[in-house]
Amino acid sequence: MSGCPYFGKKQLLFQNKFQVKEEEDDSQEGVNKASKGGIIYGDYLQLDKVVTAQVLQSELKGNKIHDEHLFIVTHQAYELWFKQILWELDSVRDIFISGHVRDERNMLKVVTRIHRIAMIFRLLVDQFAILETMTALDFFDFRDYLSPASGFQSLQFRLLENKIGVADNQRVPYNRRHYRDNFRGQESEILLKSEQEPTLLILVEQWLERTPGLEEEGFNFWEKLQTNIHEWLRLEKEKIEKLPESETKEEMLADLAKQREVFTALFDEKRHDHLLSKGERRLSYKALQGALMIYFYREEPRFQVPFQLLTSLMDIDTLVTKWRYNHVCMVHRMIGSKAGTGGSSGYHYLRSTVSDRYKVFVDLFNLATFLVPRDWVPKLNPSVHTFLYTAECCDSSYCSSDDSD
Amino acid sequence: MSGCPYFGKKQLLFQNKFQVKEEEDDSQEGVNKASKGGIIYGDYLQLDKVVTAQVLQSELKGNKIHDEHLFIVTHQAYELWFKQILWELDSVRDIFISGHVRDERNMLKVVTRIHRIAMIFRLLVDQFAILETMTALDFFDFRDYLSPASGFQSLQFRLLENKIGVADNQRVPYNRRHYRDNFRGQESEILLKSEQEPTLLILVEQWLERTPGLEEEGFNFWEKLQTNIHEWLRLEKEKIEKLPESETKEEMLADLAKQREVFTALFDEKRHDHLLSKGERRLSYKALQGALMIYFYREEPRFQVPFQLLTSLMDIDTLVTKWRYNHVCMVHRMIGSKAGTGGSSGYHYLRSTVSDRYKVFVDLFNLATFLVPRDWVPKLNPSVHTFLYTAECCDSSYCSSDDSD
Amino acid sequence: MSGCPYFGKKQLLFQNKFQVKEEEDDSQEGVNKASKGGIIYGDYLQLDKVVTAQVLQSELKGNKIHDEHLFIVTHQAYELWFKQILWELDSVRDIFISGHVRDERNMLKVVTRIHRIAMIFRLLVDQFAILETMTALDFFDFRDYLSPASGFQSLQFRLLENKIGVADNQRVPYNRRHYRDNFRGQESEILLKSEQEPTLLILVEQWLERTPGLEEEGFNFWEKLQTNIHEWLRLEKEKIEKLPESETKEEMLADLAKQREVFTALFDEKRHDHLLSKGERRLSYKALQGALMIYFYREEPRFQVPFQLLTSLMDIDTLVTKWRYNHVCMVHRMIGSKAGTGGSSGYHYLRSTVSDRYKVFVDLFNLATFLVPRDWVPKLNPSVHTFLYTAECCDSSYCSSDDSD
Amino acid sequence: MSGCPYFGKKQLLFQNKFQVKEEEDDSQEGVNKASKGGIIYGDYLQLDKVVTAQVLQSELKGNKIHDEHLFIVTHQAYELWFKQILWELDSVRDIFISGHVRDERNMLKVVTRIHRIAMIFRLLVDQFAILETMTALDFFDFRDYLSPASGFQSLQFRLLENKIGVADNQRVPYNRRHYRDNFRGQESEILLKSEQEPTLLILVEQWLERTPGLEEEGFNFWEKLQTNIHEWLRLEKEKIEKLPESETKEEMLADLAKQREVFTALFDEKRHDHLLSKGERRLSYKALQGALMIYFYREEPRFQVPFQLLTSLMDIDTLVTKWRYNHVCMVHRMIGSKAGTGGSSGYHYLRSTVSDRYKVFVDLFNLATFLVPRDWVPKLNPSVHTFLYTAECCDSSYCSSDDSD
Repeated sequence: MSGCPYFGKKQLLFQNKFQVKEEEDDSQEGVNKASKGGIIYGDYLQLDKVVTAQVLQSELKGNKIHDEHLFIVTHQAYELWFKQILWELDSVRDIFISGHVRDERNMLKVVTRIHRIAMIFRLLVDQFAILETMTALDFFDFRDYLSPASGFQSLQFRLLENKIGVADNQRVPYNRRHYRDNFRGQESEILLKSEQEPTLLILVEQWLERTPGLEEEGFNFWEKLQTNIHEWLRLEKEKIEKLPESETKEEMLADLAKQREVFTALFDEKRHDHLLSKGERRLSYKALQGALMIYFYREEPRFQVPFQLLTSLMDIDTLVTKWRYNHVCMVHRMIGSKAGTGGSSGYHYLRSTVSDRYKVFVDLFNLATFLVPRDWVPKLNPSVHTFLYTAECCDSSYCSSDDSD
Repeated sequence: MSGCPYFGKKQLLFQNKFQVKEEEDDSQEGVNKASKGGIIYGDYLQLDKVVTAQVLQSELKGNKIHDEHLFIVTHQAYELWFKQILWELDSVRDIFISGHVRDERNMLKVVTRIHRIAMIFRLLVDQFAILETMTALDFFDFRDYLSPASGFQSLQFRLLENKIGVADNQRVPYNRRHYRDNFRGQESEILLKSEQEPTLLILVEQWLERTPGLEEEGFNFWEKLQTNIHEWLRLEKEKIEKLPESETKEEMLADLAKQREVFTALFDEKRHDHLLSKGERRLSYKALQGALMIYFYREEPRFQVPFQLLTSLMDIDTLVTKWRYNHVCMVHRMIGSKAGTGGSSGYHYLRSTVSDRYKVFVDLFNLATFLVPRDWVPKLNPSVHTFLYTAECCDSSYCSSDDSD
Repeated sequence: MSGCPYFGKKQLLFQNKFQVKEEEDDSQEGVNKASKGGIIYGDYLQLDKVVTAQVLQSELKGNKIHDEHLFIVTHQAYELWFKQILWELDSVRDIFISGHVRDERNMLKVVTRIHRIAMIFRLLVDQFAILETMTALDFFDFRDYLSPASGFQSLQFRLLENKIGVADNQRVPYNRRHYRDNFRGQESEILLKSEQEPTLLILVEQWLERTPGLEEEGFNFWEKLQTNIHEWLRLEKEKIEKLPESETKEEMLADLAKQREVFTALFDEKRHDHLLSKGERRLSYKALQGALMIYFYREEPRFQVPFQLLTSLMDIDTLVTKWRYNHVCMVHRMIGSKAGTGGSSGYHYLRSTVSDRYKVFVDLFNLATFLVPRDWVPKLNPSVHTFLYTAECCDSSYCSSDDSD
Repeated sequence: MSGCPYFGKKQLLFQNKFQVKEEEDDSQEGVNKASKGGIIYGDYLQLDKVVTAQVLQSELKGNKIHDEHLFIVTHQAYELWFKQILWELDSVRDIFISGHVRDERNMLKVVTRIHRIAMIFRLLVDQFAILETMTALDFFDFRDYLSPASGFQSLQFRLLENKIGVADNQRVPYNRRHYRDNFRGQESEILLKSEQEPTLLILVEQWLERTPGLEEEGFNFWEKLQTNIHEWLRLEKEKIEKLPESETKEEMLADLAKQREVFTALFDEKRHDHLLSKGERRLSYKALQGALMIYFYREEPRFQVPFQLLTSLMDIDTLVTKWRYNHVCMVHRMIGSKAGTGGSSGYHYLRSTVSDRYKVFVDLFNLATFLVPRDWVPKLNPSVHTFLYTAECCDSSYCSSDDSD
């Protein structure tokens, strides 16, 4: 075709009717660089390792079962994505740990990567549908060959839980043993180390504690909020009390009393700390205040991206829990209520982990309990406005540093 | 709890309120087998290979770019699933090639595995959403390091196309060269071999040609159908001609003429063969008859699963084409209309492959053009009914053979 | 353009480069029928009703809140799809009730429609992602206007549960009241009626009880299976007992004892009936046998589609439960642990319904517990083979009847 | 349970083992408000209209076809969501038109709602999978009853296209007629009006033209960028020219020349305006500059949310085009290449609309062509930094106005 544009045009008459001539021409304008040497696709992706790592235990044992291949590939795909999630998690944690998060310019990175983790988990939840094309009978044909390997032994998944912030003391034991005791020497150490490093939860907590506007000597959000809420509830009560006696009035008073109770609890730091010690709360009292402040002023330019971050953190919590639940459903289908390949009681163990005990950012969900009508949210005064609008100044000393990661 | 409220209440204090006590107990009944030796999870999945195969070119070249990791993992996940698709494709092709498909008992396997391929492609279509969390700017930071590696060089994807039955002469050239010339020695040979083996298309074609009921000396579906259609169109014409002259009548006659033309084409074997030679049809005339027969009698027990198979083959065709289109969309976003990393004109090349030229089972879609009202479908007589009901008898000689795969 | 192909060709030069000339021409070949009168799109779909039914309570009360529109549309979309699910459910139940299911030709319809319900539920599970773009704060702005309307009052969802077979006595009470007491007169009656009609569960149960091969005077699957399993376990025990004493041997014996226990339970009809009375089993003992038979002989042509049906029933159960769980997650995010708009304790109530108590086909999942190695599945003898191969003959009396539905 | 195992055990007997006792109790704490009167669920959602609007033409004509119900419900669900998309689109356009967008606090709303539209389209793309459970044969049974109604007549979809900004002169004609001529009187007027109102495209364009930093008397981004790019290309050329002669050197020079050409085009306003007049560009030259500026400085706090907006606009464009393509695939399956129910040439017409002509924000995709290495992006100086950090001051006059919508 090259060198003869005329025939190229004429050819049009004989050509497949769905074919776009102009595009085809454009599509041939490239230069084939691959032939010149340099890295090629398969080497770049190390496919010699990745797509040769499917060894069927059933085949090794002389009874090749077709569906074991699906079982292996599915789990490898999970592990590949866990690797990616850990990559994103570590990078986000680094931004927080290094203090770079104080430069507001890094918030886009943080929120983008947390959102990416959510997108990956969304795919992983859907991925169970593929494994579910394997029936219990197909699985039965090879599951004995796998013993005692078990998904519980996924180091990366445990790391991922730890780095997000699943609490050691909130974990359901596995076969009556501490989860870490189910891992061998080196892996056990890696897990221990991950528990000792600052988790995403802790880093977000510290960041929330620094929310501008919380300072007692400044805007003092918390005191203002408390004052407003008391006033609001007082006025509500007055309004109701003026109504003639009736069942409805009684109910309204009862509702109001309930609401007062809720807000009394909110402002009771001791109660918060008590719940914290029991693991029913996970964020410090100060961090909770920061989160609520971001909730209420989310439309302020300064808080728009932070608000998105809180939303994405809830997304991750929700998606991890959906992943757990989809896992339970798949296991129920595959093995009924029998023990898992690792000897665990499978279905029942997994089901017990679909619990708010495993929700790391549970406090962010609970904030929905503490909302007040817009009119009772403390008003920002012009000076605080300006303060919030202007991002924290970037200290030239570390802005000039390399922020590539 | 009834009868002992006190203890019930007390118990509550020591127990997380969302936690299911009984389940937790069940969940601890297992025996920890992993500690006893034997294969463990990470070794089984060869994670030492799979999750260590992420080497960033940008890092090697001293300028680590965070998002390159996502780029690598996404492509590896695609390749993992391509491996699985090839596994399923090969197993289905084996069932056909070996003749085991004549034992109707293997049809469940065939249809399940073809359906599984469709489910995998559904995931792969969605998977682009993850890569799209990377912006053009993020990609720009490392894309020069990848040159000249290109997704075009995915051996497995080309194999997959070939094994399904994408025709060599229907392929859009890549940089004016035959697609196979873009691969190195051994890979090129593997591709050539895959073109020479029976494709899924050819195997399905042969199977369709054997559809019971087509035999001229038997039920002779094709002749009966032709007779019925002629009669139907004749009666329609009569009916219309009795109407008083009007614009509507003219239109009805025009419509009918069009329809007659469509069916004339259907029964014109030469025309079919002509289209076949041009690549606009892919199934033999006989196979087309078989497919239409399965369409019309899909509710007969004998044809229910075969009908599902035809539907799943269309699913795959559609999903592959959606995959191509999603790929185009992603590339447009990443590189605009620039050349791809392999030097191809990227966007334009890919767009030209989203074409019916790449649809392998295009004839099954076109069958929708040849439907007739239920009343004009030739009636099965009781003897054919019985024949169709009774599955092909399983020849004891190969039924006794191992049908594990 | 017609009549002047030359200019048509020339025009090509000036035309948008992504545009397909040939296609465009094809695309203009139609005749505009709409202008001639007859039904039009909007009337057909009654859009005057459907897209005018969005009345915001907040707007009526003088404080229009943007996001209430999303809330309404999302719920209407759910209800539209519930309508469709009921349509499919009723049609499937009719096929069973009318006895048409005895004509194997109707099995394709049954399995297709049950699969369609599963596909709809898959969409409904994903649909929560849209509502989750509304934050707790957005919801707070209008939720008071909705009181006391509550999703619990969805008549169609309760009907759907009842028609599938959620048991009245397995339901979690709602605000300490029977679920039906939360509905008004006529709706309450419709619900009661749906409880009294044969549920999908009951119809499937009756169909399973008729599984060919169960007859005691015939193949007598159940007895053969029991014999085989005893023999298998006996041989296993012998094998293990020959091993030298060791910890491993002890464990193997313990495992075997456990397995024996499982199978003893399987063959204990009284135990089954006891569990049935407690609601932990839902299928009759005979139906359970039929289901297990279909499991084991799923590759027999006669059982391929029935096996698909059982799989799709489990799909529905799983998806309904995932829908419940996604609902819980959404509610947690919207209202924390506060009471729902209907006054229920919202989050806690919903969470308690994500339970195996609400799984209708729980027995099908549990069958995974009772699998045996292929070699120990009773062999079909040629006569049974033939019997199974040949579908139940269609009684001419009702085959001639209209099977349109 | 500790201290009283006996009662703990006993309790178990009376309680379903998967049931959470404590939760159940919490779940019963609510007060049943529904019984007290007030709005109820079905009335709120106007279900009497929505779920009674399914009238089958086939049934009216005495030949009820089961699958027509699915056809109706699917299309109604599409229309419901189109209504929601229009709701979001109009609200976003209002924010722009009213000038409220100058208050940066409204950007969160804008980006959230545009993102919501993307989420809805994601669902709509998936929704085709449900309609595809209907086969061509099922559709054939009732499609004649629908004539001449056609999906082309969806007023809401055309409005949606117009309001986003699909250009009248870029539309593929439908049966050789202007698209609007296919609508009746009032609908045609509504469509005309929507074309005359400011589209999302135009509003975004105006907003981009105001991007701070573009001012010639200020930061003057465009001149700085041009200077930098020239310098960059000059240095690149110098570097290459110092290399010894070789084929590689020739290629590098050729690549560089190509790149120079690309950037020359970028800075050629006349060329841009020419492409604009042909419809190959859609944004003004000034707006393009603003978009590129946001791309390059996306990490600046001031530009983070604007950058998300540009990304979401591309998401919508991509998803609409995927929707079109999925529609094409579905139609191909349903009717082959026959004419559609409205008389259009169906498949071919629809396929021609899957084109970049219908991409509204095509310029944003093309920006990927004009990226430069980070080091050559003009540096912000401290004063511009401050300027960008501080949001446009909120004019007290309209800030105090009600910005609820």
